[in-house]
Amino acid sequence: MRMPHNKEILTPVVESLTPANKGLENVVACTSEISTIHDVTLLYRGYTIEDLAQSCGFEEVVHLLWTGKLPNSTELAHIRKDLVAAMALPPALVPHLETLAKTNSHPMAKLRSAVSFFGNLDTNQDDISPASIKEKSIKMTGAMGAITAALSRLEQGQALIAPQADKTIAWNFLNMIRGKAPTADEEKLFDTALVLHADHELNASAFSTRVVASSTTDYYSAMTAAVGSLKGPLHGGANEAVMVMLKAIGSYDKVDAFIEDAIVNKKKVMGIGHRVYKNGDPRAKILRELSLVTCKKAGLEDFHKMLVRIQEQMEEQKGLMPNVDFYSGLVYTALGLQPKDFTPIFATSRISGWSAQIMEQFANNRIYRPRAFYVGPVGLKSTPIAQR
Amino acid sequence: MRMPHNKEILTPVVESLTPANKGLENVVACTSEISTIHDVTLLYRGYTIEDLAQSCGFEEVVHLLWTGKLPNSTELAHIRKDLVAAMALPPALVPHLETLAKTNSHPMAKLRSAVSFFGNLDTNQDDISPASIKEKSIKMTGAMGAITAALSRLEQGQALIAPQADKTIAWNFLNMIRGKAPTADEEKLFDTALVLHADHELNASAFSTRVVASSTTDYYSAMTAAVGSLKGPLHGGANEAVMVMLKAIGSYDKVDAFIEDAIVNKKKVMGIGHRVYKNGDPRAKILRELSLVTCKKAGLEDFHKMLVRIQEQMEEQKGLMPNVDFYSGLVYTALGLQPKDFTPIFATSRISGWSAQIMEQFANNRIYRPRAFYVGPVGLKSTPIAQR
Repeated sequence: MRMPHNKEILTPVVESLTPANKGLENVVACTSEISTIHDVTLLYRGYTIEDLAQSCGFEEVVHLLWTGKLPNSTELAHIRKDLVAAMALPPALVPHLETLAKTNSHPMAKLRSAVSFFGNLDTNQDDISPASIKEKSIKMTGAMGAITAALSRLEQGQALIAPQADKTIAWNFLNMIRGKAPTADEEKLFDTALVLHADHELNASAFSTRVVASSTTDYYSAMTAAVGSLKGPLHGGANEAVMVMLKAIGSYDKVDAFIEDAIVNKKKVMGIGHRVYKNGDPRAKILRELSLVTCKKAGLEDFHKMLVRIQEQMEEQKGLMPNVDFYSGLVYTALGLQPKDFTPIFATSRISGWSAQIMEQFANNRIYRPRAFYVGPVGLKSTPIAQR
Repeated sequence: MRMPHNKEILTPVVESLTPANKGLENVVACTSEISTIHDVTLLYRGYTIEDLAQSCGFEEVVHLLWTGKLPNSTELAHIRKDLVAAMALPPALVPHLETLAKTNSHPMAKLRSAVSFFGNLDTNQDDISPASIKEKSIKMTGAMGAITAALSRLEQGQALIAPQADKTIAWNFLNMIRGKAPTADEEKLFDTALVLHADHELNASAFSTRVVASSTTDYYSAMTAAVGSLKGPLHGGANEAVMVMLKAIGSYDKVDAFIEDAIVNKKKVMGIGHRVYKNGDPRAKILRELSLVTCKKAGLEDFHKMLVRIQEQMEEQKGLMPNVDFYSGLVYTALGLQPKDFTPIFATSRISGWSAQIMEQFANNRIYRPRAFYVGPVGLKSTPIAQR
């Protein structure tokens, strides 16, 4: 009854059906001009991530991702003003955030519902014209950090904090979630983390955004799907796990024994390895260097030294290099942020990339409608229920 | 600067990169045992849709989709009891439904937020073990219709109606949304519509569900994405458009002139044509026959005759056949349902198929992580902002 290779069944309908790699690995699903891994580094619109991390702030990178060009001073002032204005949440959203904060949900599940309901409140939510998608992207990119900060504060029974118009997204986010203005070093470190996480080719959440968008549904349906995808342990969340690992190890002198045990017993070392960057993730290198000052000031120099030692040992003994999650959890911890907020913080940056992906998808759309290769039975006939 | 075919860039990273068809058309994205188009009809788990529509109720089909087997009497009683019990919504969901009902949102955007928040209320929401996914599928499949009914009633300022344990999902849904118990004919007609819409191979929302699920996120993130996908005009909503078309034509004697105008001026006739069923969608044939009695009783016999005439003319003159959306809008209208609820009703049935898809995805998961073919610039270097 079972027909494991019934190609002949589908042939009349689909001419060129060829089994793809599982998870569509190595299959090209679209063309893109947004970001790519080139040589040994990550490019956004042709600029290396090292260049952008050193020379540009997050708002400049958002402008770059959406338009293909770095902004001039006027353009930067304009987009920053709009993005920071969008960090002031619609009052009608707040009661829902309060309700969500009281649930025993995964932080990303709260964010998913908040993003979805944010969409319900947009009176022009179904407009997918380029101008409207740009406007929604600004609103949502500002709002994502504000929602993350609001949920975190509401969970702790704290009052919400409004954004300040003359500051950056990075400054405002840290102030709004911690209730404490960042130092210049802290602002720069967090801003750089936002730059580093803004986009990363066709990762699972970017692909989710494009797939959902392709039925020409609205912006918010696509972003809600992306948040839901990033929530998955195979996508987001490894930086939380790195912090758990550091705390489990406990101190610098126990690192070598931990590594030896991990290697001998084939235990996974969190934040190590990347299936694309074989020479190491450039984002990890940037965070390692930039985070040292803030780690010292936060009394977390030991954790930093432990990570560096783990990195050296894993490279020496296994030839494996750290990925972006390896240092980002420590960066956020040094900035006074809580592990449960790490993945929402990822979304606070990545919303800019998801928005770029939906702009590109809508500019040249075709509904994603691949085929399933049917391996089930054929020719069955139901029998009356009494005979089953 | 621009490199339209930079295959060499990606070659070191990805060995076998080949550009796929746009929208992944004709690309196999997974194997599946759930449903397929075979010969000229649709199969669920090997049974033809004609057989199932005639011999089985929706709850039997749900059991079939999830387990691969038609239930015996005991199994049917069990799953029906659980599904109907799940039509009683959690009290904590109702205030959010009231809030959503007051927004000026697309009905599917309301449903998207309701499904997402339903997930927040599940205290075991992140459990993706087979037993837990089965339990969530039962809860959500019962709840989808109940949420649809509740939103519809709340929008009209009507009180919610509880499910009755000794009735089917079809009976309860009609009673809960209309406030009026269905006749036996009405129940059978709606039940058949649920059977016909339960699954349809790897359509855009099923693919969305699988893509989002594949990061091993939770059940509700995947279902929220599916609702957001179905919301898109390229996926759901054509049956609403058929009703608009019928009303615009106005009467039977104007059908031929409408068709002539449509053909001459190359206007789209809603609900006609399907890119896979070249001999016509079997679901349309079933609905056409089964709906006549209810259309007559509802005083909609003229609309039914108009659809039959449009079908005949389009087949004769253009060789095109109707799809399932062609008759379903009239079916729902004859049942006293409102056009704005048609796509949520689609979701009320399709949630069973989406649930089957996530079960199959998790049973043999790999994260969907295809590649984008980069066609943007490389080698750019940022200039100071004052020089831009």
